[in-house]
Amino acid sequence: MNYWHHSSTGIAFLSAILRYAIPSEIKPASQTFVNTVTPKKIPTAANSICMRVALENVPGTLGRFSTVIGEMGGNIAGLSRIDAKGDKVGCEVDIHASSADHARRIVAAVQATVGVEINEWWDRTFRLHEGGKIEVLPRCALNDAHDLAMAYTPGVARICASIQRDPELAHTYTMKKNMVAIVTDGTAVLGLGNVGPAAALPVMEGKTLLFKEFAGVDAFPICLDATDPDQVVETVTRLAPNFGGINLEDIAAPACFEIEERLIHALNIPVFHDDQHGTAIVVLAALKNAVKVVDKSMSDLRVVISGMGAAGVAIGNILLRAGVAEIVGVDRRGAVYAGRMGLNPVKERFAEVTNPGHRTGSLRDVLFGADVFIGVSAPDLLEPADVGRMAAEPIVFALANPDPEIRPEALEGLAAITATGRSDYPNQINNVLAFPGIFRGALNGRAVSITESMKSAAAVAIAACVSDDELAADRVVPSVFNRSVAPAVAAAVIAAIPPIT
Amino acid sequence: MNYWHHSSTGIAFLSAILRYAIPSEIKPASQTFVNTVTPKKIPTAANSICMRVALENVPGTLGRFSTVIGEMGGNIAGLSRIDAKGDKVGCEVDIHASSADHARRIVAAVQATVGVEINEWWDRTFRLHEGGKIEVLPRCALNDAHDLAMAYTPGVARICASIQRDPELAHTYTMKKNMVAIVTDGTAVLGLGNVGPAAALPVMEGKTLLFKEFAGVDAFPICLDATDPDQVVETVTRLAPNFGGINLEDIAAPACFEIEERLIHALNIPVFHDDQHGTAIVVLAALKNAVKVVDKSMSDLRVVISGMGAAGVAIGNILLRAGVAEIVGVDRRGAVYAGRMGLNPVKERFAEVTNPGHRTGSLRDVLFGADVFIGVSAPDLLEPADVGRMAAEPIVFALANPDPEIRPEALEGLAAITATGRSDYPNQINNVLAFPGIFRGALNGRAVSITESMKSAAAVAIAACVSDDELAADRVVPSVFNRSVAPAVAAAVIAAIPPIT
Repeated sequence: MNYWHHSSTGIAFLSAILRYAIPSEIKPASQTFVNTVTPKKIPTAANSICMRVALENVPGTLGRFSTVIGEMGGNIAGLSRIDAKGDKVGCEVDIHASSADHARRIVAAVQATVGVEINEWWDRTFRLHEGGKIEVLPRCALNDAHDLAMAYTPGVARICASIQRDPELAHTYTMKKNMVAIVTDGTAVLGLGNVGPAAALPVMEGKTLLFKEFAGVDAFPICLDATDPDQVVETVTRLAPNFGGINLEDIAAPACFEIEERLIHALNIPVFHDDQHGTAIVVLAALKNAVKVVDKSMSDLRVVISGMGAAGVAIGNILLRAGVAEIVGVDRRGAVYAGRMGLNPVKERFAEVTNPGHRTGSLRDVLFGADVFIGVSAPDLLEPADVGRMAAEPIVFALANPDPEIRPEALEGLAAITATGRSDYPNQINNVLAFPGIFRGALNGRAVSITESMKSAAAVAIAACVSDDELAADRVVPSVFNRSVAPAVAAAVIAAIPPIT
Repeated sequence: MNYWHHSSTGIAFLSAILRYAIPSEIKPASQTFVNTVTPKKIPTAANSICMRVALENVPGTLGRFSTVIGEMGGNIAGLSRIDAKGDKVGCEVDIHASSADHARRIVAAVQATVGVEINEWWDRTFRLHEGGKIEVLPRCALNDAHDLAMAYTPGVARICASIQRDPELAHTYTMKKNMVAIVTDGTAVLGLGNVGPAAALPVMEGKTLLFKEFAGVDAFPICLDATDPDQVVETVTRLAPNFGGINLEDIAAPACFEIEERLIHALNIPVFHDDQHGTAIVVLAALKNAVKVVDKSMSDLRVVISGMGAAGVAIGNILLRAGVAEIVGVDRRGAVYAGRMGLNPVKERFAEVTNPGHRTGSLRDVLFGADVFIGVSAPDLLEPADVGRMAAEPIVFALANPDPEIRPEALEGLAAITATGRSDYPNQINNVLAFPGIFRGALNGRAVSITESMKSAAAVAIAACVSDDELAADRVVPSVFNRSVAPAVAAAVIAAIPPIT
């Protein structure tokens, strides 16, 4: 089962090394590495491996070993299970690489190092995923027949009958109280596109972890083998009785808009397409703090949004409601304006409420003199000169993942504030700042939907998690690991739930 | 939220007591007790309550208190948190009652007892269900950005891409490896009938506990707001990509037969309607041991099955394959035989392969001279005299739940072997002996379906968990808490998986 787990009995492996002397040729038997995301220059845990090595127990071997890794561009992230036995020192070494291919080259270089023998190595990301990332556990004991008589038959029948008489009780006596479905059709997964329901599951499982870790919300992945909006809406409606909320995820635009809208109307529990609103809320939070830093006002801002998918449209809408003066959306064909030929209905509606100056032309054209660039589009669309032609103290949120519209390094001295979606630069704009607290608040407050005022309240709460003392150009959003964010968001969301009329 | 949790600030509660002096009138404010299952004579944990009381700290109070409970017919199941403070002794007392109403009468009687004050009391079954019985937890750490980079973006993209290239990898790197959907449409829940998806959920959550507890299988409840077989099949097919198996549950006959059959054909993962096959497997296991005890042979047996729902039909089929000589099914209208008017297609097929003697008449008629009675029908259908007219050493499995077709007490000296579905009598025939191990085996062995030979192997394994030394008239099945059953069943099921052709 350990598909990505490569062990070698020294001799066979060494002879393989000798036969395939060119490092890039060395790969363990029966596996092919997949390197689908654009290789990043920076070594990260995402592409890390672990090696179990035996080093000759003489001074200098560890030095030689770590020097080789460093020379190959790898980062040693950890050294553990060090165990000296006679003339060998065994240990396990975690090594960050910049791609799966890079990791393989590091393995080959280590194999060629005198005094170092690799007993085994594995891809840490694949190892972590073995058997999946989540499990379903009991919240009550099941030690004897008495426990069973309460948690299962015959006692459970009394709970069922109560819920049948009063369906509201499901929110008290079942998992529904705390359970969110993470629903995808697998059509727009990360930067990978339409990978289908099976390949989407690891992302949804990851999202489940974030829900539980940051807000104690139980979440469960539902990856549908259906992409037609009618079928998605129908299926989610049928399985909704179990759940306290629906988080839509990685559904391609424009189907995502229709699916969300129809489900909101069909169900009396919160439905929230995170790629739209989660992103929009965190962008709004970051922008609120950014304008404070550059001493501008929302109502004076001219904002250009690059990318008219789920996120771009939602960002435009939330900024409109936040009072931004002028918003211009840009898609592959340039500025979106009322009357442009061939707009889909979503963009048509967007054009009607934005771009009051009826601007036309390319991204570069409309960016001229703008205060804010928000990119949710594609890598490397911007040049430093484009940013140079923006208004004074430009704000650049280059959020394409994993590779932003422009590298923050290229903006030093040009942009007043830069943010990306990445954890390795300051100002990481990540949905995890929003969705756990939003659902925590919606569930605790028994909200029947996520209203615009609840979204705005969440953005205000996120922004407020950066204190005035901390607020700075490189600190417009709190860290994703700031544990006070989700509770603050939840409290703000609860306070913003409209009273039942 | 604590709907079933009743606290009282002494004076208000006492004044309520004084006003409502008749015990049955005493109920805490804002709640109505639901007592839907037929009240059982025996006090059990299913109907238990916990009282927090303050006893006067003088000799005799505890004696008086426990005497009152005993006189009222309650059983004290536990006494905890005993804390003497000055002139009071506080403690919490678990009390088994025979119904919710009975519990209320006990409360009233205790309230009327000199020297005893109830501070608070609650229904233990409802308390246990608060917030639901299951949660979804991470199987990996999420402590820092490195963990996040592996479990979520960007690292997770490599897992997604691998699965996209080779869908089989989903069984290694996602929850699918160990995850079963427990699917119901809520149409035949316990003895409650068609309660709908929301009210069915507590049972499905309970089942989830059993899967995890006995076999380490993760299971998740899916209660569908759809009862049309087309819709159920369609919905399950769409959400199946996540799951390693489908356990159908509490779906009414005859729709359950069609749904199972169609899903087996549509999906390449095991689909198993537990109410049919789980029951049938455990019945076969019990019968194998029972015939050993009475020294009869399967091939000589004449068996009458009362109840032609999901369980009855499946029991008939598994016994046919096990070589039982004669099986007669009986429904509300009497014996099922080929050519009887008005049979549904399932019973028609059943009639064709059973009842070779073309017996007609009532249950009582066909039971005359039979070796075995298997009831999966309704309470109190049998009289002792009916059993008296069976063949020598009759075997009676009275499995209607919670109240069997005949009480075991009534069969003393009449039946050679008696079994029920209840935990408070010997020979409890419960599906939990089968389904956890069956799915454990199917998942580990990567079975694409549960074949007849896998079911038979499971029955043999369950029967073998009662050793020849232990085997006796009151011990034809292992205890549901025997932890060696599920692993034994899993091993047998794996061995019986047909090779891929």
